[in-house]
Amino acid sequence: MVEALVFDVFGTCVDWRGSVIRELEAVGRTKGIVADWSAMADEWRREGYIRGIASIRSGEMPYVGSDVLFGRKLDELLPKYGVAPLSEPETRTLAHAWRRLDPWPDTVPGLQRLKTRFVISPLSNGSFPTLTSMAKRAAMPWDCIITTELRQTFKPAREAYLLAAELLDLQPDQVMLVAAHDSDLRGAQAAGLHTALVPRPLEWGPHAPPLPAPDPSFDYVATDFLDLARQLGV
Amino acid sequence: MVEALVFDVFGTCVDWRGSVIRELEAVGRTKGIVADWSAMADEWRREGYIRGIASIRSGEMPYVGSDVLFGRKLDELLPKYGVAPLSEPETRTLAHAWRRLDPWPDTVPGLQRLKTRFVISPLSNGSFPTLTSMAKRAAMPWDCIITTELRQTFKPAREAYLLAAELLDLQPDQVMLVAAHDSDLRGAQAAGLHTALVPRPLEWGPHAPPLPAPDPSFDYVATDFLDLARQLGV
Repeated sequence: MVEALVFDVFGTCVDWRGSVIRELEAVGRTKGIVADWSAMADEWRREGYIRGIASIRSGEMPYVGSDVLFGRKLDELLPKYGVAPLSEPETRTLAHAWRRLDPWPDTVPGLQRLKTRFVISPLSNGSFPTLTSMAKRAAMPWDCIITTELRQTFKPAREAYLLAAELLDLQPDQVMLVAAHDSDLRGAQAAGLHTALVPRPLEWGPHAPPLPAPDPSFDYVATDFLDLARQLGV
Repeated sequence: MVEALVFDVFGTCVDWRGSVIRELEAVGRTKGIVADWSAMADEWRREGYIRGIASIRSGEMPYVGSDVLFGRKLDELLPKYGVAPLSEPETRTLAHAWRRLDPWPDTVPGLQRLKTRFVISPLSNGSFPTLTSMAKRAAMPWDCIITTELRQTFKPAREAYLLAAELLDLQPDQVMLVAAHDSDLRGAQAAGLHTALVPRPLEWGPHAPPLPAPDPSFDYVATDFLDLARQLGV
């Protein structure tokens, strides 16, 4: 019945936090700067990306893509954390840290297995070049790249999930979203997709509050992508 | 300088004619029908797809995607070649013959090599599900799927080529189109892309007229994708 698995990326497939902290630390070493890189990474993600998307969805801010959201927030955070001034190319390279995120250990082997049975694609609010570059660097074996940017929308808007079904020429219930975040999975449910929760308790670092108990309405709950493959009989 | 190679698909990467003839022959065997399957395949491609795109580009016909063009022409050709009536599912399965095209022998090994150095993507007038399904079945290792359908345009319109550069966050001259067809390559040149001609003399079958001499303005002329990889030093 399910023909395609579409995946949330930031947090679900990749350890954005650990990866961005490493990128910031590397800049700090080069420039001889010490700062709270973990806090800067969290603020970049939470205030730049998550809050930026919320502001656009609520109509407070006109649409811009996620690369612009990341770029604008970085321009604010560089002086705040004492990293400015960077040159224009240095800033751009650092903004592209979001294209160099490392997958969780199970991600690539899990996707390789799932790909043998299902069409697999990201369904992310990340940009097309971000998702494409990230996949190539990390060898994530997607069959295609689907980003909500193609319709200038953002998950969890209904049309974001329907976009995936439409681009794959499938009915919504032939598609399953795999994600670490309840709000994303609830959006997918509302659009008629199947859902698989893969909690990533380390997404916000080792000191993050514990995750809530899995919502029993999700079709699958798996500890990682290899466990999901096993549950799907792949 | 060139960071991404984008490929024409029908004719350049895959032997659409041989593949579609085989699909038609299989239907003929099942139904006990004998017809000129080669002529039907050629008419499907030439009158359905190529002429349909030309009619849309000239403004004679409103925009529809290539799947619709293939489907409409099939509805005409089935009675003309004595194949009607097929059931609705049989017709849909046959229309999806364009998702089951076999690559030329050098295509997959050539793409595997080129992928080690370049971002590789189709840039085709074929639909998103057609390109995605075809690639998965044939193991064409694209980094992403780019179709002109994402902008409701068709090559050789300028915006079709600029779409590829934009989605990959590259300048046009950082992208090279690989194609078997001069008109496509000239469109790419006009949009500022680099060009590589890979002639496919068997595209229209063994009795097709010989191809013209390669246009010396193309950046590369290669006998196949492996030769292109060699010329690019990959």
